[in-house]
Amino acid sequence: MIYLDNAATTWPKPEETIKAIEDCIRNNGANPGRGGHTMSLSAGRIVFETREALARLFNAGDPARIVFTGNATEALNLALKGVLKPGDHVITSSMEHNAIARPLHVLKKKGVDVTELPCSSQGFLDPGDVSKAVRRNTRAVVVLHASNVTGTIMPVKEIGQITREKGIIFIVDAAQTAGLLDLDVEKMNIDLLAFTGHKSLYGPQGTGGLFIREGIELEPLIEGGTGSRSESLEQPEDMPDRFESGTPNTPGIAGLGAGIRFIISRGIDQIRSHKHRLMARFLDGLKQMKKIEIYGPGDPAVQVPVISINVKEQDSSEIAFILDKVFHIACRSGLHCAPMAHKTIGTLDRGAVRFSFSIFNTEEDVDRTLDALERTVAELP
Amino acid sequence: MIYLDNAATTWPKPEETIKAIEDCIRNNGANPGRGGHTMSLSAGRIVFETREALARLFNAGDPARIVFTGNATEALNLALKGVLKPGDHVITSSMEHNAIARPLHVLKKKGVDVTELPCSSQGFLDPGDVSKAVRRNTRAVVVLHASNVTGTIMPVKEIGQITREKGIIFIVDAAQTAGLLDLDVEKMNIDLLAFTGHKSLYGPQGTGGLFIREGIELEPLIEGGTGSRSESLEQPEDMPDRFESGTPNTPGIAGLGAGIRFIISRGIDQIRSHKHRLMARFLDGLKQMKKIEIYGPGDPAVQVPVISINVKEQDSSEIAFILDKVFHIACRSGLHCAPMAHKTIGTLDRGAVRFSFSIFNTEEDVDRTLDALERTVAELP
Repeated sequence: MIYLDNAATTWPKPEETIKAIEDCIRNNGANPGRGGHTMSLSAGRIVFETREALARLFNAGDPARIVFTGNATEALNLALKGVLKPGDHVITSSMEHNAIARPLHVLKKKGVDVTELPCSSQGFLDPGDVSKAVRRNTRAVVVLHASNVTGTIMPVKEIGQITREKGIIFIVDAAQTAGLLDLDVEKMNIDLLAFTGHKSLYGPQGTGGLFIREGIELEPLIEGGTGSRSESLEQPEDMPDRFESGTPNTPGIAGLGAGIRFIISRGIDQIRSHKHRLMARFLDGLKQMKKIEIYGPGDPAVQVPVISINVKEQDSSEIAFILDKVFHIACRSGLHCAPMAHKTIGTLDRGAVRFSFSIFNTEEDVDRTLDALERTVAELP
Repeated sequence: MIYLDNAATTWPKPEETIKAIEDCIRNNGANPGRGGHTMSLSAGRIVFETREALARLFNAGDPARIVFTGNATEALNLALKGVLKPGDHVITSSMEHNAIARPLHVLKKKGVDVTELPCSSQGFLDPGDVSKAVRRNTRAVVVLHASNVTGTIMPVKEIGQITREKGIIFIVDAAQTAGLLDLDVEKMNIDLLAFTGHKSLYGPQGTGGLFIREGIELEPLIEGGTGSRSESLEQPEDMPDRFESGTPNTPGIAGLGAGIRFIISRGIDQIRSHKHRLMARFLDGLKQMKKIEIYGPGDPAVQVPVISINVKEQDSSEIAFILDKVFHIACRSGLHCAPMAHKTIGTLDRGAVRFSFSIFNTEEDVDRTLDALERTVAELP
């Protein structure tokens, strides 16, 4: 099988990730941060090491500012609902995933004012539009770092300058970019950075988290036992406990730590170059084919290795079905949980077929996929 | 090492659990319910099978009524915040874990009226007190099924009769009992049942969930991509999607499914008998020792295999430290994230030393622990 659904979750995972999960369950399977016994302490150490690796990766300083969640969606809900109160204004884009769009829709009904800035048909957002949209009650700007539909990279650095100047909280959804693009919360002035562990960080599903800049006041989404200040019914103020109630996914976090060590040992630049080579090769091939419509920039310089297309007038799900059943190529059709993005690029009616690459894909995968697409197009009526 | 901290998380895990996690990552590592391709469908099947196993275990009928969360704490937050609105009255007990007490503390500040029924010093709750506490605006009763401090089993069946009669929502925290005691949401009239996957269900950390009875209106805690009705900004009404946003912890859920198959193949009755034999042996030994104070019922007939004690006037953490460092016995000191319970049993000042058993403990573990305690007591000034 050729797996090209890496924007959903990377597969396969590095052997190191699998081994770390197994080792954690077998040898460090206690509950971290709750007991004083040896195995509980070693479990706590594993969780801390992953936190530290993430803090280094994002230039976040104090590891305690990284809190773990079950996925990026939970992290974004925590960020949005923790920051936005009735009467606040928030600016977002027309390329967002439902992980942002649906919580904002709920907040809107509770009295939060939402401005959705239109992006170009290739998914580009003009930072000037952000500047113009700022009002007196603008509390936050929230955008994804790169589109999960078109791969388009958003002007995060430029927006960060605007928000910092105007004293607005900047929330970034790095689901498609953490581990792939440079992410520096200091240089980019990012206040809240949501990430997932199971995509370009090569950890397992069930992991994700949020960087929370010191000084940002955030209401927890979930309260409960934290293993700290247990005598108090008040959720502790201490980081990261304030936002981590109940038993964490220790084996998952161990796997995420191994995933981060994997990308660092391979070299994030090298991984990016490899994926970009594949993307360029795929785009070149697609551009030479008839009856293929490519969405997004179609330019490796300004996008991540996520490419959406349609074939002729065909429904996207039919093409994905043929690729899967006939050619054993796994890709993703439909709306990719991002209806706003599909509306922006004009594919809300039939979705698109999405291909996304990981470090484990090869040029042969690209060529065989191009060949499969050519044969599919040729067979169509 | 002798591991007696199973009330925090069971360790070791069954070989089957570890294998299922590894197999899921290696062979079914796609994102379930999001793609139509073969591996995405097989990942979806794994998630469904675990859901089905849980529905059978709890006699919950439709598997779609089981939703997965990251832990029992998240499930309880979803239940409490999803049900209780300002002006509502809720009844709870004085034995609750912070997973219930802290969210209720937050809800109290938002205008929810909370009655905390006092329990006996052994942790018993009188169901008659529940009946008497019901008011016109009582919306829910929430209790744990068994105490994580004293092991005391709560009169869940009796409370369920009261709540059903009076049309009140009944929320049960089964963190200490799912997989160990019989749990039948029909017979017990439980409307919302929160469970954890990594204790007596022998799954990995990072798993848990909530049974939601049909007809119970619940606001989601988290909205986002569900892979369903993606075109709509409204969170879908469909179960279980309404409460499962973002990528689930598929390998964890695979491991949980294997854990449930493990307990079913061993026989839940047999596992319970084994744990109860160990508990009885431990209690017998403790009762013959001088200077040991046993909390809770001290009677295997009315408690789960969780036993808290103190030694002389010693601080609980010192005893746990000696047991760990000198005798390599892992237990848990302190407040166990349940200050209300410790207040009820009179140990809020120094906590208690907790021992808890799993299917993997032996009579030898019990005897060696009793011996270690005896030697510790003898050495104390």
